[in-house]
Amino acid sequence: MADAVSAADNGVNVAALIAAREALTDAPAAAQFKWRAACEWKNGTHSQSTVESYYGLGQEQRHKRTFAFDADHPAVFASEDKGATPVEYVLVGLASCLTAGIAAVAQHRNIQLRSVKATIEGDMDIQGILGVDEEVRNGFSGIKVTYTIDADAKREDIEALVAQSQKRSAVYDIVTNPTNVTVVVD
Amino acid sequence: MADAVSAADNGVNVAALIAAREALTDAPAAAQFKWRAACEWKNGTHSQSTVESYYGLGQEQRHKRTFAFDADHPAVFASEDKGATPVEYVLVGLASCLTAGIAAVAQHRNIQLRSVKATIEGDMDIQGILGVDEEVRNGFSGIKVTYTIDADAKREDIEALVAQSQKRSAVYDIVTNPTNVTVVVD
Repeated sequence: MADAVSAADNGVNVAALIAAREALTDAPAAAQFKWRAACEWKNGTHSQSTVESYYGLGQEQRHKRTFAFDADHPAVFASEDKGATPVEYVLVGLASCLTAGIAAVAQHRNIQLRSVKATIEGDMDIQGILGVDEEVRNGFSGIKVTYTIDADAKREDIEALVAQSQKRSAVYDIVTNPTNVTVVVD
Repeated sequence: MADAVSAADNGVNVAALIAAREALTDAPAAAQFKWRAACEWKNGTHSQSTVESYYGLGQEQRHKRTFAFDADHPAVFASEDKGATPVEYVLVGLASCLTAGIAAVAQHRNIQLRSVKATIEGDMDIQGILGVDEEVRNGFSGIKVTYTIDADAKREDIEALVAQSQKRSAVYDIVTNPTNVTVVVD
């Protein structure tokens, strides 16, 4: 019988995630993570950030390699455009978080994904950041994410995947709810 | 006398930004921007996002080149660690936004920067994203940014630079205040 069961393989190790959930239920201290980046100003509005270490499961951890990211403002802001803008990094974080969640939830629900693509767009009135109008916020007035998903599932099941991914997404929570940020000078 | 005046040069074209502010005050429609990314699922929790076009100043715009970003979950989540995690992208966005702001404000205040470095750390209890405890949020419980700045200025002036950058930062606003996000399946 086992051979006749169609098993989805989206490359997500759901068994390990379920085991982790059980292990962390008994050891909540291990669930306390610290995610980090370092940022160095280059020139003008150009900076380079690196991501390398983090803390979790009760000890210091390290990515397989150091990831480096240039950020800058674009030419229309009289900058050099040497990297994506900071707000575009937020969009990358949100889209990639929701997409990873869709893959994980699909695996858990035994739905085979063939392709998952998203476009994400954030509206911004730059009168805010330029200080033209104090009533205009600096950030996005709203964000829209549009998924195109090809999977062995009915449309309603695909929509349910996306909804469950939103429910468990770290970045969706960060963007839709306030987070306390402390900025200090050393 | 002109030669005796010390003029800071942080590589930021403040004159252009002030001109833009004046121009946009008269033409607020040009201030409506749309920032975008596209995200494609690769395998497991690995995706690749690209940043290329945006809309602003009343027309479609394009970065000088396409920026591509791999995102993944780390090995401790039984993933391949093929890129930074989505939440680390948010930290990169926040640190780079504040850093660009510091350079721009310093230029405007004629303060020469020699070096600006930031470390950023976000605390997260992963019992949230794993669904262990519904009371635990998915995102960061808090974020701390620590700047080390070497500049031709008194400490209080450096602290004022950082404070003004926070006040005008798009990503600081996005992280500290809620934004409406709509997610649809095409």
